[in-house]
Amino acid sequence: MDEFTFIERLKKKIPPAKNAVLGIGDDAAVLRFSGPGRLVVSTDMIVEKVDFVLNRSEPEQIGRKALAVNLSDLAAMGAKPLAFVISIGKPAYVDARWLDRFYDGLLRLARRYKVDCVGGDFSAAKEFSASVTIFGTARKPILRSGAKAGDWIAVTGRLGGSILRHHFDFTPRVREGLALARSGLVHSMIDISDGLCQDLHHILNASCVAAELDPRRIPVSSDAIHLGRKNSLAALERALTDGEDFELLFTVPGPAKSVLERRWKKECRGVSLNWIGRIVKGKPGIRWISNDKRVRMRRGLSRKGFRHF
Amino acid sequence: MDEFTFIERLKKKIPPAKNAVLGIGDDAAVLRFSGPGRLVVSTDMIVEKVDFVLNRSEPEQIGRKALAVNLSDLAAMGAKPLAFVISIGKPAYVDARWLDRFYDGLLRLARRYKVDCVGGDFSAAKEFSASVTIFGTARKPILRSGAKAGDWIAVTGRLGGSILRHHFDFTPRVREGLALARSGLVHSMIDISDGLCQDLHHILNASCVAAELDPRRIPVSSDAIHLGRKNSLAALERALTDGEDFELLFTVPGPAKSVLERRWKKECRGVSLNWIGRIVKGKPGIRWISNDKRVRMRRGLSRKGFRHF
Repeated sequence: MDEFTFIERLKKKIPPAKNAVLGIGDDAAVLRFSGPGRLVVSTDMIVEKVDFVLNRSEPEQIGRKALAVNLSDLAAMGAKPLAFVISIGKPAYVDARWLDRFYDGLLRLARRYKVDCVGGDFSAAKEFSASVTIFGTARKPILRSGAKAGDWIAVTGRLGGSILRHHFDFTPRVREGLALARSGLVHSMIDISDGLCQDLHHILNASCVAAELDPRRIPVSSDAIHLGRKNSLAALERALTDGEDFELLFTVPGPAKSVLERRWKKECRGVSLNWIGRIVKGKPGIRWISNDKRVRMRRGLSRKGFRHF
Repeated sequence: MDEFTFIERLKKKIPPAKNAVLGIGDDAAVLRFSGPGRLVVSTDMIVEKVDFVLNRSEPEQIGRKALAVNLSDLAAMGAKPLAFVISIGKPAYVDARWLDRFYDGLLRLARRYKVDCVGGDFSAAKEFSASVTIFGTARKPILRSGAKAGDWIAVTGRLGGSILRHHFDFTPRVREGLALARSGLVHSMIDISDGLCQDLHHILNASCVAAELDPRRIPVSSDAIHLGRKNSLAALERALTDGEDFELLFTVPGPAKSVLERRWKKECRGVSLNWIGRIVKGKPGIRWISNDKRVRMRRGLSRKGFRHF
């Protein structure tokens, strides 16, 4: 199947864009952008053997993931997703049937999040890759750099062990990110893609503050416990350093904690909200504190995490 | 060099965004978008061995091309480029020094076109690829689908033989695209990436019209003549079918031709404007006419062109 035949097939598969004036098929897509607020743009690529193994995963899962990681980035800004484009590197051993199923997974998630596929590109390649760029809007995007001493640190869901299945079937926290942005209470936010410790460091570095975390308050996932083979420290270390949780990590000023908890119960049913520590003054870094006492953790732990190359 | 060290280096290299509220370094970039008009988005990827050969080209050329092909897409919509993001697949044999030079070429062109690099992603990969998504604004984007019977067909510059050097050093016709959009005279437009005939077909199919082209009026480049070894038909065929000219192909209503010519002389100095034929009623297809007589051209010629896989 040549490029144009395939693109013609895709065009029929991809529903007409609702947020766009013009979707696939011209030199560029054209989007309406109205109202106050900002345009928020993020890009994330997934590559065979780095992010997944082609014949060990369903094409639908891979297609879903290509979009889901980008939705997670918009969630971390408190932005509402609008549309995306996707570039695909296609090796000879990937056929039209496989790509069809890849798009099934991708478009199913797109429908669920009401985000339009408005363009893309294909190229022959040695290995399969998919690079998505997503656009959304936010009245006031939440950055990594806003954390302040005294803030509570919170994380959604449960962490660690994503390699078992969560890295494919996670729910991008778009609803939660939007609720947090609407609340106006959040100082800083990031999504956990490199591991809790490493992503918290991104907030600390950007905000020039330190953190005190209580290891007993880290929400450890059942997959992390399973992989830790009932060694609770091993499970905790997984929760702190495993990548691809795609949960939200954010900070709120001390007095706002209880207000936020009430809103959370109403607006974010089914997703747990965990307070894991406080932001404090000091050189960017994590201190471990439990019952007001310093706890010793393995050296270098807070620096470990997923690296992309 | 690990990902974060490299990204830190890049951050210093990439100038602060002027059109963006927030550039590289958070989960997403944040752009201001004001005024009337539309957001125009395009994406294009280049892959080693498909679009260039790594050790036969300078990294600066490849970096330049990764952005230039995207600027050309915005030019074809009559849009003003604002910002872009870039995802890079990085094989082990590409080192930091090479990537540095790749970014030198990319950012030099970005400066010239006043377009900001606002984000990106890196991944380990088997071969080098760069996927750029670019955003711009247009009051009224010019589509492929607007050609009407009676329109003149025009093309900028000279065509064919781009493989010799033009596919690296071409000037994206952003200035010309903007001038054409401002004129309000253009019915349809595309940039020539797959070859004149094939890209004209894209306009004809989208607009449900046919074209009459005069083979004597096709502007053949000196590189096409060189590659055609002084066989003028071979050179002409190259001009009609070689890909990656990145010139603009557009149509204007009959009465507007002379108005447009006057504006062109003022606003688009140094770039030739060539009238190569007319849009006529009929099934999408190209007829060859010279001195009011049908000319026979090689069969299938009008369908030949560059294919991406």
